[in-house]
Amino acid sequence: MTSSAPGRFITFEGGEGAGKSTQVRLLAERLGTRGIRTLTTREPGGSPRAEEIREVILSGHAARLGPLAEALLFAAARADHLASTIRPALARGDWVICDRFADSTRAYQGVAGGLEEGVINALERLVVGVTRPDLTVVLDLPAEIGLRRANQRRGEAAIDRFESEPLAFHKALREAFRSIAAREPGRCVLVDATGTPEDVGQAVWACVWSRLLDDGAGRGHG
Amino acid sequence: MTSSAPGRFITFEGGEGAGKSTQVRLLAERLGTRGIRTLTTREPGGSPRAEEIREVILSGHAARLGPLAEALLFAAARADHLASTIRPALARGDWVICDRFADSTRAYQGVAGGLEEGVINALERLVVGVTRPDLTVVLDLPAEIGLRRANQRRGEAAIDRFESEPLAFHKALREAFRSIAAREPGRCVLVDATGTPEDVGQAVWACVWSRLLDDGAGRGHG
Repeated sequence: MTSSAPGRFITFEGGEGAGKSTQVRLLAERLGTRGIRTLTTREPGGSPRAEEIREVILSGHAARLGPLAEALLFAAARADHLASTIRPALARGDWVICDRFADSTRAYQGVAGGLEEGVINALERLVVGVTRPDLTVVLDLPAEIGLRRANQRRGEAAIDRFESEPLAFHKALREAFRSIAAREPGRCVLVDATGTPEDVGQAVWACVWSRLLDDGAGRGHG
Repeated sequence: MTSSAPGRFITFEGGEGAGKSTQVRLLAERLGTRGIRTLTTREPGGSPRAEEIREVILSGHAARLGPLAEALLFAAARADHLASTIRPALARGDWVICDRFADSTRAYQGVAGGLEEGVINALERLVVGVTRPDLTVVLDLPAEIGLRRANQRRGEAAIDRFESEPLAFHKALREAFRSIAAREPGRCVLVDATGTPEDVGQAVWACVWSRLLDDGAGRGHG
Protein backbone atom coordinates (compact mmCIF):
# COMPACT_ATOMS: atom_id res chain seq x y z
CA MET A 1 0.00 0.00 0.00
CA THR A 2 1.53 3.26 -1.07
CA SER A 3 -1.00 5.56 0.58
CA SER A 4 0.23 6.96 3.86
CA ALA A 5 -3.32 7.50 5.19
CA PRO A 6 -5.21 5.01 7.36
CA GLY A 7 -8.20 4.67 4.99
CA ARG A 8 -7.98 2.85 1.68
CA PHE A 9 -8.13 4.51 -1.71
CA ILE A 10 -9.74 2.60 -4.61
CA THR A 11 -10.14 3.99 -8.12
CA PHE A 12 -12.15 2.70 -11.07
CA GLU A 13 -10.87 3.35 -14.56
CA GLY A 14 -11.94 2.45 -18.09
CA GLY A 15 -13.54 3.84 -21.23
CA GLU A 16 -17.06 5.15 -21.82
CA GLY A 17 -19.86 2.75 -20.91
CA ALA A 18 -17.62 0.38 -18.94
CA GLY A 19 -19.93 0.62 -15.93
CA LYS A 20 -17.63 2.52 -13.57
CA SER A 21 -20.30 4.49 -11.69
CA THR A 22 -22.43 1.36 -11.20
CA GLN A 23 -19.46 -0.58 -9.85
CA VAL A 24 -18.47 2.30 -7.54
CA ARG A 25 -21.97 2.16 -6.05
CA LEU A 26 -22.08 -1.64 -5.76
CA LEU A 27 -18.69 -1.77 -4.05
CA ALA A 28 -19.63 0.99 -1.60
CA GLU A 29 -22.81 -0.91 -0.70
CA ARG A 30 -20.90 -4.14 -0.20
CA LEU A 31 -18.25 -2.48 1.98
CA GLY A 32 -21.03 -0.73 3.91
CA THR A 33 -22.63 -4.05 4.85
CA ARG A 34 -19.29 -4.97 6.46
CA GLY A 35 -19.26 -1.81 8.54
CA ILE A 36 -16.65 -0.01 6.45
CA ARG A 37 -17.41 3.69 6.03
CA THR A 38 -16.95 4.78 2.40
CA LEU A 39 -16.88 8.03 0.50
CA THR A 40 -17.72 7.76 -3.21
CA THR A 41 -16.55 10.50 -5.53
CA ARG A 42 -15.65 11.14 -9.17
CA GLU A 43 -13.31 12.95 -11.50
CA PRO A 44 -13.24 15.45 -12.97
CA GLY A 45 -15.00 17.00 -10.01
CA GLY A 46 -15.45 15.69 -6.50
CA SER A 47 -15.16 19.06 -4.72
CA PRO A 48 -17.04 22.34 -5.30
CA ARG A 49 -14.16 24.08 -7.10
CA ALA A 50 -13.23 20.95 -9.06
CA GLU A 51 -16.85 20.66 -10.21
CA GLU A 52 -16.58 24.22 -11.58
CA ILE A 53 -13.45 23.18 -13.45
CA ARG A 54 -15.31 20.07 -14.71
CA GLU A 55 -17.80 22.38 -16.40
CA VAL A 56 -14.98 24.10 -18.29
CA ILE A 57 -13.40 20.77 -19.29
CA LEU A 58 -16.53 19.03 -20.51
CA SER A 59 -18.28 21.96 -22.20
CA GLY A 60 -17.90 21.62 -25.92
CA HIS A 61 -19.32 25.03 -26.83
CA ALA A 62 -16.04 26.95 -27.01
CA ALA A 63 -12.93 26.16 -29.01
CA ARG A 64 -11.27 22.86 -28.17
CA LEU A 65 -8.45 22.95 -25.63
CA GLY A 66 -5.13 21.34 -26.56
CA PRO A 67 -3.98 18.26 -24.60
CA LEU A 68 -1.52 20.29 -22.48
CA ALA A 69 -4.14 22.83 -21.33
CA GLU A 70 -6.59 19.99 -20.78
CA ALA A 71 -4.10 17.97 -18.70
CA LEU A 72 -3.35 21.09 -16.61
CA LEU A 73 -7.05 21.66 -15.98
CA PHE A 74 -7.49 18.06 -14.87
CA ALA A 75 -4.42 18.46 -12.65
CA ALA A 76 -5.86 21.63 -11.07
CA ALA A 77 -9.19 19.92 -10.42
CA ARG A 78 -7.39 16.86 -9.01
CA ALA A 79 -5.24 18.97 -6.68
CA ASP A 80 -8.38 20.51 -5.18
CA HIS A 81 -10.24 17.19 -5.10
CA LEU A 82 -7.36 15.60 -3.19
CA ALA A 83 -6.98 18.50 -0.76
CA SER A 84 -10.68 19.12 -0.13
CA THR A 85 -12.22 15.65 -0.34
CA ILE A 86 -9.95 12.63 -0.70
CA ARG A 87 -7.15 13.28 1.83
CA PRO A 88 -9.51 14.41 4.62
CA ALA A 89 -11.62 11.27 4.14
CA LEU A 90 -8.58 8.96 4.16
CA ALA A 91 -7.30 10.73 7.26
CA ARG A 92 -10.62 9.98 9.00
CA GLY A 93 -10.13 6.31 8.11
CA ASP A 94 -12.83 6.20 5.43
CA TRP A 95 -12.39 4.17 2.30
CA VAL A 96 -12.51 6.44 -0.76
CA ILE A 97 -13.89 5.00 -3.99
CA CYS A 98 -13.35 7.24 -6.97
CA ASP A 99 -14.84 7.06 -10.48
CA ARG A 100 -11.77 7.95 -12.63
CA PHE A 101 -8.48 9.35 -11.34
CA ALA A 102 -4.94 9.96 -12.63
CA ASP A 103 -4.90 6.99 -15.01
CA SER A 104 -7.65 8.68 -17.02
CA THR A 105 -5.34 11.66 -17.64
CA ARG A 106 -2.65 9.20 -18.72
CA ALA A 107 -5.05 7.46 -21.11
CA TYR A 108 -7.06 10.41 -22.48
CA GLN A 109 -4.48 13.22 -22.71
CA GLY A 110 -1.39 11.02 -22.83
CA VAL A 111 -1.90 7.99 -25.01
CA ALA A 112 -4.99 9.03 -26.96
CA GLY A 113 -4.28 12.81 -26.98
CA GLY A 114 -0.57 12.64 -27.72
CA LEU A 115 0.74 14.56 -24.72
CA GLU A 116 4.21 13.27 -23.93
CA GLU A 117 4.59 10.85 -21.05
CA GLY A 118 7.24 12.93 -19.26
CA VAL A 119 4.73 15.77 -18.86
CA ILE A 120 2.04 13.40 -17.57
CA ASN A 121 4.51 11.86 -15.11
CA ALA A 122 5.66 15.26 -13.83
CA LEU A 123 2.10 16.48 -13.27
CA GLU A 124 1.14 13.22 -11.55
CA ARG A 125 4.11 13.41 -9.17
CA LEU A 126 3.32 17.05 -8.44
CA VAL A 127 -0.40 16.63 -7.82
CA VAL A 128 -0.95 13.08 -6.57
CA GLY A 129 2.27 12.79 -4.59
CA VAL A 130 2.00 10.02 -2.01
CA THR A 131 -1.79 9.72 -2.33
CA ARG A 132 -1.64 6.96 -4.93
CA PRO A 133 -4.54 4.50 -5.04
CA ASP A 134 -4.16 1.31 -3.01
CA LEU A 135 -6.11 -0.47 -5.73
CA THR A 136 -7.15 0.53 -9.24
CA VAL A 137 -9.84 -1.53 -10.95
CA VAL A 138 -9.61 -1.20 -14.74
CA LEU A 139 -12.96 -2.18 -16.27
CA ASP A 140 -12.19 -3.57 -19.69
CA LEU A 141 -14.47 -4.05 -22.65
CA PRO A 142 -14.37 -3.50 -26.44
CA ALA A 143 -14.84 0.15 -27.41
CA GLU A 144 -17.85 -0.63 -29.62
CA ILE A 145 -19.75 -2.26 -26.74
CA GLY A 146 -18.87 0.57 -24.34
CA LEU A 147 -20.02 3.28 -26.74
CA ARG A 148 -23.26 1.42 -27.46
CA ARG A 149 -23.94 1.18 -23.71
CA ALA A 150 -23.09 4.86 -23.21
CA ASN A 151 -25.51 5.80 -26.01
CA GLN A 152 -28.33 3.70 -24.55
CA ARG A 153 -27.80 5.11 -21.07
CA ARG A 154 -27.80 8.65 -22.34
CA GLY A 155 -30.90 8.42 -24.51
CA GLU A 156 -31.53 11.94 -25.67
CA ALA A 157 -29.15 13.60 -23.24
CA ALA A 158 -26.24 15.69 -24.44
CA ILE A 159 -23.03 14.00 -25.55
CA ASP A 160 -19.97 15.30 -23.74
CA ARG A 161 -16.59 16.25 -25.18
CA PHE A 162 -15.04 12.81 -24.95
CA GLU A 163 -18.01 10.65 -25.86
CA SER A 164 -18.19 12.46 -29.21
CA GLU A 165 -14.67 11.38 -30.25
CA PRO A 166 -14.40 8.83 -33.12
CA LEU A 167 -14.20 5.08 -32.51
CA ALA A 168 -10.43 4.97 -33.13
CA PHE A 169 -9.94 7.29 -30.14
CA HIS A 170 -11.93 4.95 -27.89
CA LYS A 171 -9.99 1.93 -29.15
CA ALA A 172 -6.72 3.70 -28.34
CA LEU A 173 -8.14 4.50 -24.89
CA ARG A 174 -8.90 0.86 -24.22
CA GLU A 175 -5.36 -0.14 -25.16
CA ALA A 176 -3.99 2.66 -22.95
CA PHE A 177 -5.90 1.39 -19.92
CA ARG A 178 -4.87 -2.22 -20.61
CA SER A 179 -1.25 -1.14 -20.87
CA ILE A 180 -1.42 0.78 -17.57
CA ALA A 181 -2.86 -2.30 -15.85
CA ALA A 182 -0.14 -4.51 -17.33
CA ARG A 183 2.64 -2.14 -16.27
CA GLU A 184 1.48 -1.76 -12.67
CA PRO A 185 0.14 -5.14 -11.58
CA GLY A 186 0.79 -4.36 -7.92
CA ARG A 187 -1.73 -1.51 -7.95
CA CYS A 188 -4.03 -2.39 -10.86
CA VAL A 189 -6.34 -5.24 -11.68
CA LEU A 190 -7.99 -5.72 -15.07
CA VAL A 191 -11.62 -6.86 -14.83
CA ASP A 192 -13.69 -8.09 -17.79
CA ALA A 193 -16.65 -5.69 -17.93
CA THR A 194 -18.70 -7.39 -20.65
CA GLY A 195 -20.92 -9.31 -18.19
CA THR A 196 -23.92 -8.13 -16.20
CA PRO A 197 -23.36 -5.49 -13.48
CA GLU A 198 -23.79 -8.27 -10.90
CA ASP A 199 -21.20 -10.53 -12.54
CA VAL A 200 -18.73 -7.68 -12.85
CA GLY A 201 -19.48 -6.65 -9.26
CA GLN A 202 -18.66 -10.16 -8.10
CA ALA A 203 -15.32 -10.06 -9.91
CA VAL A 204 -14.54 -6.64 -8.45
CA TRP A 205 -15.40 -7.86 -4.98
CA ALA A 206 -13.07 -10.84 -5.34
CA CYS A 207 -10.22 -8.44 -6.15
CA VAL A 208 -11.00 -6.06 -3.29
CA TRP A 209 -11.26 -8.99 -0.94
CA SER A 210 -7.97 -10.59 -1.89
CA ARG A 211 -6.01 -7.35 -2.19
CA LEU A 212 -7.32 -5.28 0.71
CA LEU A 213 -9.37 -7.36 3.14
CA ASP A 214 -8.06 -10.90 3.30
CA ASP A 215 -5.58 -11.03 6.16
CA GLY A 216 -4.42 -14.47 5.06
CA ALA A 217 -5.80 -16.12 8.21
CA GLY A 218 -8.52 -17.88 6.22
CA ARG A 219 -11.38 -16.49 8.28
CA GLY A 220 -13.66 -16.72 5.28
CA HIS A 221 -15.07 -13.19 5.15
CA GLY A 222 -15.40 -13.60 1.33
CA MET B 1 15.42 38.44 -27.53
CA THR B 2 14.38 34.98 -26.49
CA SER B 3 11.20 34.80 -28.54
CA SER B 4 11.61 32.83 -31.73
CA ALA B 5 8.70 34.60 -33.46
CA PRO B 6 9.04 37.67 -35.72
CA GLY B 7 6.69 39.88 -33.65
CA ARG B 8 7.67 41.25 -30.26
CA PHE B 9 6.15 40.16 -26.96
CA ILE B 10 5.85 42.75 -24.17
CA THR B 11 4.30 42.04 -20.78
CA PHE B 12 3.28 44.42 -18.00
CA GLU B 13 3.49 43.22 -14.42
CA GLY B 14 2.88 44.70 -10.98
CA GLY B 15 0.46 44.75 -8.08
CA GLU B 16 -3.13 45.99 -7.89
CA GLY B 17 -3.66 49.61 -8.98
CA ALA B 18 -0.23 49.92 -10.62
CA GLY B 19 -1.84 51.12 -13.86
CA LYS B 20 -1.07 48.11 -16.05
CA SER B 21 -4.15 48.24 -18.26
CA THR B 22 -3.74 52.00 -18.84
CA GLN B 23 -0.10 51.55 -19.81
CA VAL B 24 -0.93 48.63 -22.12
CA ARG B 25 -3.37 50.92 -23.94
CA LEU B 26 -1.01 53.91 -24.08
CA LEU B 27 1.84 51.79 -25.44
CA ALA B 28 -0.39 50.19 -28.08
CA GLU B 29 -1.52 53.67 -29.22
CA ARG B 30 2.06 54.90 -29.40
CA LEU B 31 3.24 51.87 -31.36
CA GLY B 32 0.20 52.23 -33.63
CA THR B 33 1.19 55.79 -34.61
CA ARG B 34 4.50 54.30 -35.81
CA GLY B 35 2.73 51.78 -38.03
CA ILE B 36 3.36 48.81 -35.75
CA ARG B 37 0.38 46.45 -35.57
CA THR B 38 -0.33 45.44 -31.97
CA LEU B 39 -2.53 42.94 -30.19
CA THR B 40 -3.39 43.80 -26.58
CA THR B 41 -4.47 41.02 -24.27
CA ARG B 42 -4.56 40.06 -20.59
CA GLU B 43 -4.17 37.24 -18.11
CA PRO B 44 -5.85 35.32 -16.73
CA GLY B 45 -7.89 35.14 -19.93
CA GLY B 46 -7.04 36.33 -23.42
CA SER B 47 -8.79 33.49 -25.30
CA PRO B 48 -12.36 32.17 -25.05
CA ARG B 49 -11.45 29.06 -23.03
CA ALA B 50 -8.94 30.95 -20.87
CA GLU B 51 -11.66 33.52 -20.07
CA GLU B 52 -13.85 30.64 -18.82
CA ILE B 53 -10.97 29.52 -16.60
CA ARG B 54 -10.55 33.14 -15.42
CA GLU B 55 -14.10 33.00 -14.09
CA VAL B 56 -13.22 29.96 -11.98
CA ILE B 57 -10.00 31.55 -10.70
CA LEU B 58 -11.42 34.93 -9.73
CA SER B 59 -14.78 33.85 -8.36
CA GLY B 60 -14.66 34.01 -4.61
CA HIS B 61 -18.00 32.33 -3.97
CA ALA B 62 -16.75 28.78 -3.54
CA ALA B 63 -14.07 27.49 -1.19
CA ARG B 64 -10.61 28.93 -1.74
CA LEU B 65 -8.25 26.97 -3.98
CA GLY B 66 -4.79 26.12 -2.66
CA PRO B 67 -1.75 27.69 -4.38
CA LEU B 68 -0.95 24.48 -6.32
CA ALA B 69 -4.43 24.14 -7.81
CA GLU B 70 -4.45 27.87 -8.50
CA ALA B 71 -1.05 27.77 -10.25
CA LEU B 72 -2.24 24.81 -12.36
CA LEU B 73 -5.38 26.71 -13.38
CA PHE B 74 -3.31 29.73 -14.40
CA ALA B 75 -0.99 27.38 -16.31
CA ALA B 76 -3.96 25.80 -18.14
CA ALA B 77 -5.34 29.21 -19.06
CA ARG B 78 -1.88 30.37 -20.16
CA ALA B 79 -1.34 27.31 -22.36
CA ASP B 80 -4.56 28.07 -24.21
CA HIS B 81 -3.86 31.81 -24.35
CA LEU B 82 -0.44 31.15 -25.89
CA ALA B 83 -1.75 28.59 -28.39
CA SER B 84 -4.92 30.46 -29.41
CA THR B 85 -3.91 34.12 -29.21
CA ILE B 86 -0.28 35.01 -28.50
CA ARG B 87 1.71 32.66 -30.75
CA PRO B 88 -0.53 33.18 -33.82
CA ALA B 89 -0.20 37.00 -33.42
CA LEU B 90 3.59 36.83 -33.04
CA ALA B 91 3.77 34.55 -36.06
CA ARG B 92 1.88 37.19 -38.11
CA GLY B 93 4.52 39.72 -37.01
CA ASP B 94 2.24 41.63 -34.62
CA TRP B 95 3.52 43.01 -31.35
CA VAL B 96 1.69 41.43 -28.44
CA ILE B 97 1.21 43.53 -25.31
CA CYS B 98 -0.11 41.54 -22.38
CA ASP B 99 -1.50 42.73 -19.04
CA ARG B 100 0.07 40.16 -16.65
CA PHE B 101 1.84 36.94 -17.65
CA ALA B 102 4.02 34.27 -16.05
CA ASP B 103 5.69 36.62 -13.54
CA SER B 104 2.30 37.12 -11.89
CA THR B 105 2.11 33.39 -11.17
CA ARG B 106 5.62 33.60 -9.73
CA ALA B 107 4.64 36.54 -7.51
CA TYR B 108 1.10 35.60 -6.48
CA GLN B 109 1.27 31.81 -6.10
CA GLY B 110 5.02 31.54 -5.59
CA VAL B 111 6.32 34.25 -3.34
CA ALA B 112 3.09 35.50 -1.76
CA GLY B 113 1.24 32.14 -1.82
CA GLY B 114 4.12 29.92 -0.70
CA LEU B 115 4.21 27.51 -3.64
CA GLU B 116 7.77 26.28 -4.03
CA GLU B 117 9.89 27.81 -6.77
CA GLY B 118 10.78 24.45 -8.35
CA VAL B 119 7.10 23.86 -9.11
CA ILE B 120 6.66 27.35 -10.58
CA ASN B 121 9.78 26.88 -12.72
CA ALA B 122 8.64 23.49 -13.99
CA LEU B 123 5.19 24.79 -14.96
CA GLU B 124 6.71 27.85 -16.64
CA ARG B 125 9.09 25.72 -18.71
CA LEU B 126 6.25 23.40 -19.67
CA VAL B 127 3.74 26.07 -20.64
CA VAL B 128 5.70 29.13 -21.79
CA GLY B 129 8.56 27.25 -23.42
CA VAL B 130 10.38 29.48 -25.89
CA THR B 131 7.64 32.13 -25.95
CA ARG B 132 9.23 34.24 -23.23
CA PRO B 133 8.57 37.99 -23.31
CA ASP B 134 11.10 40.13 -25.16
CA LEU B 135 10.46 42.85 -22.58
CA THR B 136 8.67 42.85 -19.23
CA VAL B 137 7.74 46.22 -17.71
CA VAL B 138 7.33 45.93 -13.94
CA LEU B 139 5.22 48.86 -12.72
CA ASP B 140 6.36 49.55 -9.17
CA LEU B 141 4.62 51.47 -6.42
CA PRO B 142 3.96 51.11 -2.68
CA ALA B 143 1.16 48.61 -1.91
CA GLU B 144 -0.84 51.23 0.04
CA ILE B 145 -0.97 53.58 -2.96
CA GLY B 146 -1.85 50.77 -5.37
CA LEU B 147 -4.71 49.49 -3.22
CA ARG B 148 -6.06 53.03 -2.76
CA ARG B 149 -6.05 53.52 -6.53
CA ALA B 150 -7.70 50.13 -7.10
CA ASN B 151 -10.42 51.05 -4.60
CA GLN B 152 -11.08 54.41 -6.24
CA ARG B 153 -11.20 52.87 -9.71
CA ARG B 154 -13.58 50.19 -8.61
CA GLY B 155 -16.05 52.42 -6.80
CA GLU B 156 -18.91 50.17 -5.86
CA ALA B 157 -17.88 47.25 -8.09
CA ALA B 158 -17.11 43.83 -6.66
CA ILE B 159 -13.70 43.14 -5.16
CA ASP B 160 -12.00 40.13 -6.71
CA ARG B 161 -10.17 37.27 -5.00
CA PHE B 162 -6.78 38.93 -4.92
CA GLU B 163 -7.77 42.52 -4.21
CA SER B 164 -9.40 41.33 -0.99
CA GLU B 165 -6.12 39.97 0.46
CA PRO B 166 -4.61 41.83 3.44
CA LEU B 167 -2.00 44.57 3.01
CA ALA B 168 0.90 42.28 4.02
CA PHE B 169 0.10 40.08 1.00
CA HIS B 170 0.29 43.08 -1.33
CA LYS B 171 3.57 44.21 0.23
CA ALA B 172 5.02 40.73 -0.34
CA LEU B 173 3.79 40.91 -3.93
CA ARG B 174 5.60 44.18 -4.53
CA GLU B 175 8.84 42.72 -3.21
CA ALA B 176 8.33 39.63 -5.38
CA PHE B 177 7.98 41.72 -8.53
CA ARG B 178 11.00 43.87 -7.59
CA SER B 179 13.06 40.76 -7.03
CA ILE B 180 12.05 39.26 -10.39
CA ALA B 181 13.08 42.51 -12.12
CA ALA B 182 16.42 42.53 -10.28
CA ARG B 183 17.14 38.89 -11.16
CA GLU B 184 16.39 39.21 -14.87
CA PRO B 185 17.63 42.66 -15.95
CA GLY B 186 17.99 41.53 -19.57
CA ARG B 187 14.26 40.94 -19.90
CA CYS B 188 12.77 43.17 -17.20
CA VAL B 189 12.71 46.86 -16.49
CA LEU B 190 11.40 48.38 -13.26
CA VAL B 191 9.38 51.58 -13.82
CA ASP B 192 8.28 53.94 -11.03
CA ALA B 193 4.49 53.95 -11.27
CA THR B 194 3.71 56.67 -8.70
CA GLY B 195 3.47 59.49 -11.27
CA THR B 196 0.63 60.44 -13.61
CA PRO B 197 -0.33 57.95 -16.35
CA GLU B 198 1.35 60.28 -18.87
CA ASP B 199 4.61 60.43 -16.88
CA VAL B 200 4.66 56.66 -16.45
CA GLY B 201 3.80 56.23 -20.14
CA GLN B 202 6.78 58.39 -21.06
CA ALA B 203 9.09 56.24 -18.92
CA VAL B 204 7.65 53.05 -20.45
CA TRP B 205 8.12 54.43 -23.93
CA ALA B 206 11.76 55.27 -23.21
CA CYS B 207 12.34 51.62 -22.22
CA VAL B 208 10.53 50.20 -25.25
CA TRP B 209 12.44 52.56 -27.49
CA SER B 210 15.86 51.71 -26.13
CA ARG B 211 15.26 47.98 -25.79
CA LEU B 212 13.27 47.12 -28.88
CA LEU B 213 13.28 49.96 -31.42
CA ASP B 214 16.56 51.88 -31.30
CA ASP B 215 18.83 50.34 -33.90
CA GLY B 216 21.77 52.30 -32.53
CA ALA B 217 22.09 54.38 -35.71
CA GLY B 218 20.96 57.53 -33.91
CA ARG B 219 18.09 58.24 -36.31
CA GLY B 220 16.20 59.95 -33.52
CA HIS B 221 12.84 58.14 -33.71
CA GLY B 222 12.45 58.71 -29.95
